[in-house]
Amino acid sequence: MVLGDVFVLAFVPAACVVGILFALTQWYIVSRVSVGGHRVSNNGYMHVDEDGIDDSSVVEKCAEIQAAISEGSESFLQTEYQYLSVFMGIFSVIIFVFLASVGGFSFDRQPCDYDPSQSCPSSIANAFFSTVAFILGAVTSTLSGYLGMKIATYANARTTLEARRGVGPAFIVAFRSGSVMGFLLAANGLLVLFLTILVFKLYFGDDWVGLYEAITGYGLGGSSVALFGRVGGGIYTKAADVGADLVGKIEQNIPEDDPRNPAVIADNVGDNVGDIAGMGADLFGSFAESTCAALVVSSISSFGTDRNFVAMCFPLIISAAGIFVCLITTLFATDLFAIKGVKEIEPTLKRQLVISTILMTAAIFLVSWYALPETFTINVVGHEPKVVKNWHIFFCVGSGLWAGLIIGFVTEYFTSNAYTPVQDVADSCRTGAATNIIFGLALGYKSVIIPVFAIAAAIYLSYSLAAMYGIAVAALGMLSTLATGLAIDAYGPISDNAGGIAEMAGMSHEVRERTDALDAAGNTTAAIGKGFAIGSAALVSLALFGAYVSRAGIASVDVIQPKEFVGLIVGAMLPYWFSAMTMKSVGKAALAMVEEVRRQFRTIPGLMEGTTKPDYKRCVQISTDASIKEMIPPGALVMLTPLIVGTLFGVETLAGLLAGALVSGVQIAISASNTGGAWDNAKKYIEAGNSEHAKSLGPKGSDAHKAAVIGDTVGDPLKDTSGPSLNILIKLMAVESLVFAPFFAANGGWLFRIWT
Amino acid sequence: MVLGDVFVLAFVPAACVVGILFALTQWYIVSRVSVGGHRVSNNGYMHVDEDGIDDSSVVEKCAEIQAAISEGSESFLQTEYQYLSVFMGIFSVIIFVFLASVGGFSFDRQPCDYDPSQSCPSSIANAFFSTVAFILGAVTSTLSGYLGMKIATYANARTTLEARRGVGPAFIVAFRSGSVMGFLLAANGLLVLFLTILVFKLYFGDDWVGLYEAITGYGLGGSSVALFGRVGGGIYTKAADVGADLVGKIEQNIPEDDPRNPAVIADNVGDNVGDIAGMGADLFGSFAESTCAALVVSSISSFGTDRNFVAMCFPLIISAAGIFVCLITTLFATDLFAIKGVKEIEPTLKRQLVISTILMTAAIFLVSWYALPETFTINVVGHEPKVVKNWHIFFCVGSGLWAGLIIGFVTEYFTSNAYTPVQDVADSCRTGAATNIIFGLALGYKSVIIPVFAIAAAIYLSYSLAAMYGIAVAALGMLSTLATGLAIDAYGPISDNAGGIAEMAGMSHEVRERTDALDAAGNTTAAIGKGFAIGSAALVSLALFGAYVSRAGIASVDVIQPKEFVGLIVGAMLPYWFSAMTMKSVGKAALAMVEEVRRQFRTIPGLMEGTTKPDYKRCVQISTDASIKEMIPPGALVMLTPLIVGTLFGVETLAGLLAGALVSGVQIAISASNTGGAWDNAKKYIEAGNSEHAKSLGPKGSDAHKAAVIGDTVGDPLKDTSGPSLNILIKLMAVESLVFAPFFAANGGWLFRIWT
Repeated sequence: MVLGDVFVLAFVPAACVVGILFALTQWYIVSRVSVGGHRVSNNGYMHVDEDGIDDSSVVEKCAEIQAAISEGSESFLQTEYQYLSVFMGIFSVIIFVFLASVGGFSFDRQPCDYDPSQSCPSSIANAFFSTVAFILGAVTSTLSGYLGMKIATYANARTTLEARRGVGPAFIVAFRSGSVMGFLLAANGLLVLFLTILVFKLYFGDDWVGLYEAITGYGLGGSSVALFGRVGGGIYTKAADVGADLVGKIEQNIPEDDPRNPAVIADNVGDNVGDIAGMGADLFGSFAESTCAALVVSSISSFGTDRNFVAMCFPLIISAAGIFVCLITTLFATDLFAIKGVKEIEPTLKRQLVISTILMTAAIFLVSWYALPETFTINVVGHEPKVVKNWHIFFCVGSGLWAGLIIGFVTEYFTSNAYTPVQDVADSCRTGAATNIIFGLALGYKSVIIPVFAIAAAIYLSYSLAAMYGIAVAALGMLSTLATGLAIDAYGPISDNAGGIAEMAGMSHEVRERTDALDAAGNTTAAIGKGFAIGSAALVSLALFGAYVSRAGIASVDVIQPKEFVGLIVGAMLPYWFSAMTMKSVGKAALAMVEEVRRQFRTIPGLMEGTTKPDYKRCVQISTDASIKEMIPPGALVMLTPLIVGTLFGVETLAGLLAGALVSGVQIAISASNTGGAWDNAKKYIEAGNSEHAKSLGPKGSDAHKAAVIGDTVGDPLKDTSGPSLNILIKLMAVESLVFAPFFAANGGWLFRIWT
Repeated sequence: MVLGDVFVLAFVPAACVVGILFALTQWYIVSRVSVGGHRVSNNGYMHVDEDGIDDSSVVEKCAEIQAAISEGSESFLQTEYQYLSVFMGIFSVIIFVFLASVGGFSFDRQPCDYDPSQSCPSSIANAFFSTVAFILGAVTSTLSGYLGMKIATYANARTTLEARRGVGPAFIVAFRSGSVMGFLLAANGLLVLFLTILVFKLYFGDDWVGLYEAITGYGLGGSSVALFGRVGGGIYTKAADVGADLVGKIEQNIPEDDPRNPAVIADNVGDNVGDIAGMGADLFGSFAESTCAALVVSSISSFGTDRNFVAMCFPLIISAAGIFVCLITTLFATDLFAIKGVKEIEPTLKRQLVISTILMTAAIFLVSWYALPETFTINVVGHEPKVVKNWHIFFCVGSGLWAGLIIGFVTEYFTSNAYTPVQDVADSCRTGAATNIIFGLALGYKSVIIPVFAIAAAIYLSYSLAAMYGIAVAALGMLSTLATGLAIDAYGPISDNAGGIAEMAGMSHEVRERTDALDAAGNTTAAIGKGFAIGSAALVSLALFGAYVSRAGIASVDVIQPKEFVGLIVGAMLPYWFSAMTMKSVGKAALAMVEEVRRQFRTIPGLMEGTTKPDYKRCVQISTDASIKEMIPPGALVMLTPLIVGTLFGVETLAGLLAGALVSGVQIAISASNTGGAWDNAKKYIEAGNSEHAKSLGPKGSDAHKAAVIGDTVGDPLKDTSGPSLNILIKLMAVESLVFAPFFAANGGWLFRIWT
């Protein structure tokens, strides 16, 4: 290693600043697309387009719809954040009291865990800084979600308007907007974390263990907000979507996003609060947690005890390098190549993944070589310290990165309608909805196989080379291209909204076809994004699990022992319990939405004829109320389980529970999101009718298409509510256990103590 | 303990003989219902019934249909057994070669594992006896399935004919026939096992460890046959069922079991080969394995090393006592109370469970008290031996027994349409098939919670009291009332067939209503039976897992280690892989059936009008071919995985894999079978229209009913193919690992050895 402290102090903030400036530049470029009617002529559009639709009135309508979507999203998030702030307040108190109680609320310094001959900060100090970190993480996560929503609702109508000029310009607007979110989030998360470390260091000095244990609160805060964001947003978006589809498409036979459908604004709001804000908070949480896990593990490594600042900041340097890599990658899509046809969209997005992975591999090599000592040791509880060389770490980070790419490609294979799996599912619609559901479920189950092998291989390789530190940096590797991943991901809902706005504003058939093509590619990229989120969550959780085990002082998690095994089997059940709650919630909220939409069609005269407007606000309100109410039980399940199990049954049972939830949750999460994605694209495959086979199943409204719509509707809560929430479940329980580990180790398990 | 060796040598065979005699008596009673047309008048029926249907022609038709079903079942099982015998031959060779290779194919006696100062039989001897036990288990399992099918196809038409006299007599015939199967299977399985032990003992003498390790082959043989029986039979029955429903009910609008439907005989054959023969082999496997697990664990206990014959036979005595308890329990249903109305069917069946559980509790107490030493020790690898009192074992066996009852009740609550969960699912059909599917999946997920807690509690209690021996006898406790459980279980498909025959023979509306009521109760009891099968499989697998760990010489299964964790996450994936295969198989086979049924409706003139007969045989052939072909890949997955993982990755990874498959498989199995059962009964709820709510959703053919039919069809492969096969997956992999443990311990894991 050749880098000095000054390099770190300059490089990490520099990357953050560059990332933020780049995001602002992209935003500025997007903002030049005007949605004000009076400036339209300046942009060189015809005033009346090929379908004879008056352009300036269309622009006005777009602006109007955008405002409605933005307003609905804003109002939902504000309501959600109000509830969240109450929760955060209560949970801050819990963290503080639990952790401070470990040392009997004493201000006295105490002997360190790792070396009792030294003195470490008091438990009050640990409690205080953990709580502060928790709040910071929660606020940063909230901000990430909110900013994402802002950008998305700013970009959706602009994408629609650009679609009049062609598919290329529209793609660029959507993709640029996605990258605004990606870069803001990655840079912002890294910056706050880095500054927090520097500030905390003023107090903790060279006590890296104490410092990094307190920092885990940051991950907990980030993931808690992510949980409610994903669940609340997920219920919102799917209640609206399912409700809108059930009455609109199936009963009234009007197309998707038809402005006569009262739930249509709520549906579009849902994309922004669920798929954008929820996803943003989720991936921010993964980033924060994997960084925290790597930091905690490395604090007891040889360079941690040697107080090697550069090596300790290795996880942050990787993320900082990732920002530069993603910046270059983005230029490939926005500036170096131009999209000319519909068929180039998906390959362009896929190319982003490949380019960023290849560039990042080189970056990881450099960082591992220059930022880490040539040889160092990682402490492993109950075993000999592991001797690690810096190029080992290159393979660890790289294995995570490439496992992510493999997961991405497998997900694409199983959810894109360019390949046989989705085409088989579409074909099964011939014999009705039942076979469609059977084939779709089987597809989801099957799609788990390769990702699990990829994750398992990355885990084995990383652990063999560098124990738990290897796992933590492998997770970081998978997330190192976060900015690009998020950009691709956010692109999806923005295009979806753009399509909705085009339909609602009554834009021409041609524009609608272009936005449809953008949207179809977005479906697959959304599934890929979820694949990444789940894969990284698995690695992150395992790293956190490892950190928890070492912090709780457990020598082994022997599942042949009853305490651990009972935890394991109950843990494996939790994702089912959680999914039952979230799916039922979506079902109930959707039924309420259906009633309302039916009521409006029944009681508002002229609605079906398009002469009167529906009451959009009422539907937005129903989705808001339902999702806020319904997000509490599943949220409570996830937040309370580690506390209850740790307190009543002790650290061993909790360890088993975390392992069980992790290995079971990964499977359901992957299968749920791929099944849902496949059904959605099987439907789109029949609708598009781009091959002989597809034509034989269609057109829209055929029996096969109706069966496909049923599959799509079932898939909605699977792929957008319960599936993606599960990766937060496994991460959050692990990070929460890690934060509370000292309390559980000191006071946990009193039920078993009574019993035996 | 006060019992002597003579008691055991008399009591166990006596119980078997009594059980077999009781079964034969029941058979004789059933056989007195004549299906020969000429003797009808003797039974006192009217020749022309209330709907003006000529009785003697009806009886003739019933006999004809019964013969067709019986012939189809016979021919399928023969084909299946041909393939199975090839598999068994190959696998016998594998077992022999692998196990004999451990000692280098030497005939020399070797030092014992548990005490190197003593000499134990050679590995050739171990290989030979294991192989013989394997073949015996396989043959007994095959016989169990075959006998069950014979009885069921003998009883179905008799049940239909008795339904003319009323619901009570019909119930008694179906239930008696079920108990024939239950008692034959329980007694036969116990007898063969007992005799095998006595014969093996002639060679092994006092080497209990060697004897019982060889005996585990019996469990492996039983479960291997069960796997193919369940999977093959499951694919058969659901391909026929789904195929028949998709064309018959949905396209042609003809009722279920209409004789015009070409797939109707195949559908009825399916009930016998899947739900009867498959289920019989499955539960026989569970019984054999839990006994083997208990025997293996107890062979290294203090009474094992003391060579206490009575205590060593404790598991067999429990099963023998169970036969007497079930005999008394059966009398409550057949002789002490008579069923007068439709509403009494379900309570009567439920009462059987409760009565048998209560009686069995007393029996367990007596057996534990008199057959076990007051205090003894159980060896635990890597720990101090556990000191156990005989009344501890009472609680272990009892915890399994009562956990089974709890699982039964929870299953009933979630699958019977008398309670809100199924009614909610039925209600969700208002908004179409999509919400029905969403609610049904959520119900299945939710239904996992309490059973998992019940299993976890039984595991914790049993392990705390008596380590792995406790778990093994808890599993035995859950299976101790096997004869009653099987009787209730077999009752379902027999009633289902009876209903089918009534419809096909054109019997009166009234008779059809009675058989429908019998069938509806059978749906719930089938779900309860599956709940038992899964719960006991979980306990059995854990016991086998424990025996495997000790036989493979693993000190701990520490899932924080990469070898174990990689096994754990891949193991948790296997049930998904397996389900993907089986569901896809059913889907494909059903599509082939649909094509054939459509072809017959299209090309056979007069079929729809009922003037010509369809070609039933062609459909039977399609189901047979498809199921034989499709059962091979999932079967190979289950059989080969332990061999490959053990050989390439070693005993630790295999241990992780078993734990992962166990905790993940239990969840999917329970949720799949309950989701399927709930959809089936939600449909029946709407059809029966017995409440204001149900009437508002119906009648048959309404939109809500159509949505319910789609749910029912999706549920078919879940509840009858993939779900119930999963418990064999987890058991079989565990018992196979146990049998091959010496080989893996000696030669396994060479891939990791190359790597490191």
